[in-house]
Amino acid sequence: MVISMRHDATEEQIQAVIEKIQSLNLDSHRSTGMNYTVIGAVGDTAAIDQRDFEILDGVGEVVRISAPYKMASRQFQPFDSVIKVGNDIEIGGRQVVVMAGPCAVEGKDQIEQIAARVAGSGAKILRGGAFKPRTSPYSFQGMGEEGLQLMRTAADKHGLAVISEIMDASQIEVMLPYVDILQVGARNMQNFTLLRALGVLDKPVLLKRGLSATIEELLMSAEYLLSGGNKSVILCERGIRTFETYTRNTMDICAIPVVQKLSHLPMVADPSHGTGIRDKVLPMARAATAAGADGLIIEVHHQPDKAVSDGAQSLYPDQFGKLMKELEIIARAIGRTLGE
Amino acid sequence: MVISMRHDATEEQIQAVIEKIQSLNLDSHRSTGMNYTVIGAVGDTAAIDQRDFEILDGVGEVVRISAPYKMASRQFQPFDSVIKVGNDIEIGGRQVVVMAGPCAVEGKDQIEQIAARVAGSGAKILRGGAFKPRTSPYSFQGMGEEGLQLMRTAADKHGLAVISEIMDASQIEVMLPYVDILQVGARNMQNFTLLRALGVLDKPVLLKRGLSATIEELLMSAEYLLSGGNKSVILCERGIRTFETYTRNTMDICAIPVVQKLSHLPMVADPSHGTGIRDKVLPMARAATAAGADGLIIEVHHQPDKAVSDGAQSLYPDQFGKLMKELEIIARAIGRTLGE
Amino acid sequence: MVISMRHDATEEQIQAVIEKIQSLNLDSHRSTGMNYTVIGAVGDTAAIDQRDFEILDGVGEVVRISAPYKMASRQFQPFDSVIKVGNDIEIGGRQVVVMAGPCAVEGKDQIEQIAARVAGSGAKILRGGAFKPRTSPYSFQGMGEEGLQLMRTAADKHGLAVISEIMDASQIEVMLPYVDILQVGARNMQNFTLLRALGVLDKPVLLKRGLSATIEELLMSAEYLLSGGNKSVILCERGIRTFETYTRNTMDICAIPVVQKLSHLPMVADPSHGTGIRDKVLPMARAATAAGADGLIIEVHHQPDKAVSDGAQSLYPDQFGKLMKELEIIARAIGRTLGE
Amino acid sequence: MVISMRHDATEEQIQAVIEKIQSLNLDSHRSTGMNYTVIGAVGDTAAIDQRDFEILDGVGEVVRISAPYKMASRQFQPFDSVIKVGNDIEIGGRQVVVMAGPCAVEGKDQIEQIAARVAGSGAKILRGGAFKPRTSPYSFQGMGEEGLQLMRTAADKHGLAVISEIMDASQIEVMLPYVDILQVGARNMQNFTLLRALGVLDKPVLLKRGLSATIEELLMSAEYLLSGGNKSVILCERGIRTFETYTRNTMDICAIPVVQKLSHLPMVADPSHGTGIRDKVLPMARAATAAGADGLIIEVHHQPDKAVSDGAQSLYPDQFGKLMKELEIIARAIGRTLGE
Repeated sequence: MVISMRHDATEEQIQAVIEKIQSLNLDSHRSTGMNYTVIGAVGDTAAIDQRDFEILDGVGEVVRISAPYKMASRQFQPFDSVIKVGNDIEIGGRQVVVMAGPCAVEGKDQIEQIAARVAGSGAKILRGGAFKPRTSPYSFQGMGEEGLQLMRTAADKHGLAVISEIMDASQIEVMLPYVDILQVGARNMQNFTLLRALGVLDKPVLLKRGLSATIEELLMSAEYLLSGGNKSVILCERGIRTFETYTRNTMDICAIPVVQKLSHLPMVADPSHGTGIRDKVLPMARAATAAGADGLIIEVHHQPDKAVSDGAQSLYPDQFGKLMKELEIIARAIGRTLGE
Repeated sequence: MVISMRHDATEEQIQAVIEKIQSLNLDSHRSTGMNYTVIGAVGDTAAIDQRDFEILDGVGEVVRISAPYKMASRQFQPFDSVIKVGNDIEIGGRQVVVMAGPCAVEGKDQIEQIAARVAGSGAKILRGGAFKPRTSPYSFQGMGEEGLQLMRTAADKHGLAVISEIMDASQIEVMLPYVDILQVGARNMQNFTLLRALGVLDKPVLLKRGLSATIEELLMSAEYLLSGGNKSVILCERGIRTFETYTRNTMDICAIPVVQKLSHLPMVADPSHGTGIRDKVLPMARAATAAGADGLIIEVHHQPDKAVSDGAQSLYPDQFGKLMKELEIIARAIGRTLGE
Repeated sequence: MVISMRHDATEEQIQAVIEKIQSLNLDSHRSTGMNYTVIGAVGDTAAIDQRDFEILDGVGEVVRISAPYKMASRQFQPFDSVIKVGNDIEIGGRQVVVMAGPCAVEGKDQIEQIAARVAGSGAKILRGGAFKPRTSPYSFQGMGEEGLQLMRTAADKHGLAVISEIMDASQIEVMLPYVDILQVGARNMQNFTLLRALGVLDKPVLLKRGLSATIEELLMSAEYLLSGGNKSVILCERGIRTFETYTRNTMDICAIPVVQKLSHLPMVADPSHGTGIRDKVLPMARAATAAGADGLIIEVHHQPDKAVSDGAQSLYPDQFGKLMKELEIIARAIGRTLGE
Repeated sequence: MVISMRHDATEEQIQAVIEKIQSLNLDSHRSTGMNYTVIGAVGDTAAIDQRDFEILDGVGEVVRISAPYKMASRQFQPFDSVIKVGNDIEIGGRQVVVMAGPCAVEGKDQIEQIAARVAGSGAKILRGGAFKPRTSPYSFQGMGEEGLQLMRTAADKHGLAVISEIMDASQIEVMLPYVDILQVGARNMQNFTLLRALGVLDKPVLLKRGLSATIEELLMSAEYLLSGGNKSVILCERGIRTFETYTRNTMDICAIPVVQKLSHLPMVADPSHGTGIRDKVLPMARAATAAGADGLIIEVHHQPDKAVSDGAQSLYPDQFGKLMKELEIIARAIGRTLGE
């Protein structure tokens, strides 16, 4: 942390800052220039609130130099984390891993048909919600454990792994036997009680960026998981909230290379929630792949117009098949691959 | 819901829209103009996803006419809700109710001293966190039940009610005996599992607006509480996230009169989190009162520079006392009162 | 400017940074800590692009300590600027100055009637557009010089000064004889050609904050005016663009005290454009006054439902009269005054 | 426009709305349902302010059905506009056209060297600023006409067309002889005086989206150009302002397919300003191409660390050459081409 004093700061004020630094068990180093004095605070500053210095008399500006996250940073681990999922899938390696399936599990026939189609097109992981976070209390809230069972059966039949969303720590027990990745939704990105509970598991977690979360906050939430002991963390860009209303969210494609530079964790993209409109899912899936995403999570439904939720952003299986062929070419253009 | 067809929509496409409306148990009414056809969907449309119509062939635009919330709306209840707290406090009436206290309970002496000071200046409710949602896993996470006990004792001694934050449904049992209002923080505004659990209680809930939540989403989250049976809901503006970075958040003062027009629920303001800087808390507390807020929640600490969290945005007791005097004048200018 | 090197930066990389600093005619001072080296760049850094350092090898983070504006800053001038307008009006002093009038001048009778009413309620300055920036090329674009003449006549009759918007440097000549303040609209805040032309005039300029302009950018645009020699600059908050769509803009009331702390220039507020809805203009005018605004600019129309533009956000004269009485009380609560 | 009345609206209020519609020379059609009455306003509603209806008594909500732009819309012209630039370049056709060059022209040798390199890698158009809009009045403001001359000479030598930014209508005369495309910068997107002046020219205009401009506003500004008679309009996404601060702007890649659906005008992307950081320009250029951009405008400098402006976001010529090869593959994956 660097504290620059105002040009009219008194020696007493400078001493008060230095004492505050030392009271926090940090080392201070002072540098006095012609115009102002700069004081560095060195040590474990991650949990320090920089505003505690900003309000001291004579202080001009306070700047955090080191990132507040540690275990999520490239400094902590320079090489890419590769997360193993199920028996043979790796997220964060050369292969771009595609997860696909319906918004919600609706029944045996539905999930079975969709699993067959997405597996046939090259998806590796089946997505589908059993516990659904809905803005309205009057909307369909998911099939619960029965949905998980149906999804597991369909996935196993077609050699797919399973990802599904967890909304609350109380659902861990029922979910663990069925899923390969526990997904934390955007609205729960800062549900710290849930993050703490997931941090002690030995199960991959896919953490979605909140609608108004900065990249730093996303990495801080990952830090909750990592510091608890769970090293299998996958991050996901799914659109942020901006003033533009034509699309539901504004997909921050650039967050993909930014996160990959700051962190060793894999970063995937969700173009379905990122846009909210089917015909925009296709170009944004291509864009995310071209930008270097480590994977994609895409909603596919065999009958989108009959889907109980998010039908409007679900691809038809044929669209998904065509998309996968385009993605394969794009992935190879940047030295990666979609298939084997 | 109103669906306007494109000018080149075919009769078949129009019929498909009408059939979709009827399949959802809604009434349709059609109006054919010179340039285009407009179809109204009448009935319980709150849980309908309007995008399901947007993707139908021939559809130009779909607009939701009725708000997706019901019980939170002025149509549902035209008169103001007045929430009774403790023995004799009413939020939503003529009096502007001030809640004040530290960010976190830190110890017996601290909470006792602060309670004495804020009560002396006219606050009615003591605020203080025992379970703290922190961005960093390495930050102080609160004193837990012990903190609640200390706060209750201090509040009772000075005739104050108690408000404290709940982070997870698992904390309900331990909190109920100690607090008069359960506060849901901004990051949990769409923690639907928590909202459902609070909706079946007989205890006032203060629901803070999320950092990127629209006013409609705030009212939808209130709907979770109301539809569960809990009618004692207080809403709170605490700043939204924008591009401006000088202040931590941008306090949307106008949300106060907007919510009061759309809903019968009381709307209070939190200028401490809304600005994040002590010297901005004062003007924003005055602004919120001038805009018609039903109450304020303000961080006060007897030794802000020694506070374990949020010291930078905590008022000194003397500042708080002076502020209360200004607020009294402003409240009276618009026909309200701060004191008796 | 402070440049913190990465912990693994080499001595060569550190030297390269120091050389870059010196090549820009700045002084460097180096401070080597246990974990990393921090280098300060001292001198006239206002026109330096900090990214030029960010891309150098070994650099961790670059932070600008001194603000990029000079003449607009409190450091440059610690005491408040008081801008004299017309014969006897002062903006930036103890009095909160109210400017009121229609969105656009529409005719002799209209501007005369409105001038009479707003003067009667205590406004000091008549506002009204003669050149109108409109989003649509098909909308009414203003009466031009004829409108200015009508406004001047009406203002003189009632002892008011005149403020009107300038859209392009080519309009300076025609406007100067009629107006006391030239207003630069939000969409032109970074029209640097216009700012340069206004900077060499001896006429007060009211500069509105752009819809997505940071406070720093607002002050940088003021710097264009001040550095050209024009010291009569008034700043204005008029709402920023955020994700919330219920109101046209989100009025950043907190920008008022923030600007007043950073700069010596007066800061007024425009609650009409800040909200876009008549019944929200009243609470936001009160809020801005309570937050310490040096003035207000408010749209008033004697027949809002017949106004050619912005009728929806124009107050009725009676509403304006009642509002002025409330504002007087609020101004006095914070040691200021609205009238004499 | 559709006006839905409140459920408790009186017959008188409904009649008042109908009369207002008719007074604006629009046809009204009324549809009375069980719960509420809906009134359609049909005709030329582009220049109507919908708030004029929102404030009428009894009105619940007002929705604009038809877009406020006409000539820019797909309804007006269903097929793609293809803009001819120079002798043989077409923007909006099958080829993805790349414009490249320095931020600012700095001298003969600089622009000549860069022109040679970008032409060699497949760029078709040379970019470079001669009039520079700078946030700070103390920054380099461009070489003016001399810069234009140098750029034209360098471009001609390498078979390139020329694009350069115009800041004010007074610069038209000096620019016309030298440039093939006049570029309107983001900060001038709603400089209506400038747009009107460009609308009567017979010269292609590239219009950049403002930092906080919605897609609808971008198309409305295009309407200023088109309605003046200039049909050669190219639109450009260059990043919008959001809460995320890691990148200078958030590039809204999805705006590319959205604009292409709503409008017949070509839409290109500027990943240099869209990100502000060199190493993010590469992935975002690929992403924009994968999303279907009709062209790219990219900053390239032979000595970025010596550039007078924007060096931090300028590519090295070698990076640009490698990027062009990747883009060629991506373009072909979606049925387009970069070269011949």
